[in-house]
Amino acid sequence: MNLKEYALIVAGGKGTRMKTKLPKQFLALSGLPVLMHTINAFYRYNANTEVILVLPEDDFQLWEELCVKHNFKKNIKLQKGGDSRFQSVKNGLSLIEGEGLVAIHDGVRPLVSEDIIGASYRLAAVHDSAVAAVRLKESIRMTDQDNTKAMDRSRFRLIQTPQTFKTALIKQAYEGKEDASLTDDASVAERAGHVISLFEGSYENIKITTPEDLVVAKALMDDRSKT
Amino acid sequence: MNLKEYALIVAGGKGTRMKTKLPKQFLALSGLPVLMHTINAFYRYNANTEVILVLPEDDFQLWEELCVKHNFKKNIKLQKGGDSRFQSVKNGLSLIEGEGLVAIHDGVRPLVSEDIIGASYRLAAVHDSAVAAVRLKESIRMTDQDNTKAMDRSRFRLIQTPQTFKTALIKQAYEGKEDASLTDDASVAERAGHVISLFEGSYENIKITTPEDLVVAKALMDDRSKT
Repeated sequence: MNLKEYALIVAGGKGTRMKTKLPKQFLALSGLPVLMHTINAFYRYNANTEVILVLPEDDFQLWEELCVKHNFKKNIKLQKGGDSRFQSVKNGLSLIEGEGLVAIHDGVRPLVSEDIIGASYRLAAVHDSAVAAVRLKESIRMTDQDNTKAMDRSRFRLIQTPQTFKTALIKQAYEGKEDASLTDDASVAERAGHVISLFEGSYENIKITTPEDLVVAKALMDDRSKT
Repeated sequence: MNLKEYALIVAGGKGTRMKTKLPKQFLALSGLPVLMHTINAFYRYNANTEVILVLPEDDFQLWEELCVKHNFKKNIKLQKGGDSRFQSVKNGLSLIEGEGLVAIHDGVRPLVSEDIIGASYRLAAVHDSAVAAVRLKESIRMTDQDNTKAMDRSRFRLIQTPQTFKTALIKQAYEGKEDASLTDDASVAERAGHVISLFEGSYENIKITTPEDLVVAKALMDDRSKT
């Protein structure tokens, strides 16, 4: 049985870290808003992906204008964001009725590849969850009272998105109480008692949070289009 | 009293991860080998920095040729690398005779800023050590038997270079036995009983280990020269 594939794109950022008025998901990257690159990655993987886009309600009008400007005609379900990422994801999940798989993905990770998206759905179908993660390139230290101590970096993984789950599992997990320690969907699912299955993400799958990230994303995108 | 300032540049890489024959420190970045950018950063901070460059002995001739080609005339002490990073650093430290401060820095981190170099010497003079570190932008999980578990990312720091120390302290620390768990100079100093002092590094201070890193470094360098 092929499970229905949803993409829940969370784009609630308010742009404070970017020092711009325009939230970072709307900034242009090679002529197109970051968020449209992100959504297009899912359509490149599968033109029939059911996309749910969670945006602050205040940005709905801007989004509609950008869609007209860029002739971006897609059958996207728009949902309003909440006061936190947790609330935004929960609002997005409420639009999913049936059984299936949902890839929850940061709107500001436009460089996600079709391979990674495909792997996340394929693995989540088998393991219930599939969370993109990469190994550490650098040494790591952990704070320990007033001091820090060296840790074995091979034991750690940096977590990206997509974080893909069986829809029933993640909807049920988000019924739990909000808690500031739950920084991503994997930790929400884990709190609900589920084992988290990781798979190999990519160092190129960066999250755009600073002006430098936008420079880096453009360079990686230009490099990709050369080959 | 002004302490003498040494820079120990470690460039022992053999280029396997870059899929190139030329080790990554010799690859061109905006026309100049990566390693020369790195060394120039220290001279921009202080033209009188005493630079010790540790290279595999097999690369000495290539280095001399590159210096002629790029008219790179600097009073650098060249030292041969060992079989491991530990041995290479130890070889480099053996060229330091007097009291002072030594900034140990990866040859493949060409984007280190003068501000970071200056801060590392200034703080190490006060705290005996000063190690560049950044906070995590992403969630982190730690392996736990066959599973992984979410960790509080605010408790972790990713470690960069420069890692700067009082010369006597770090020379003495490197008298200890080599051990695969010692992945950087901070962990060597910590093993010898010293408290490690961290300071704020920079996300731009990337280590070039993959072809994509070179693309990113070029973009950041071009962006910097625009302002």
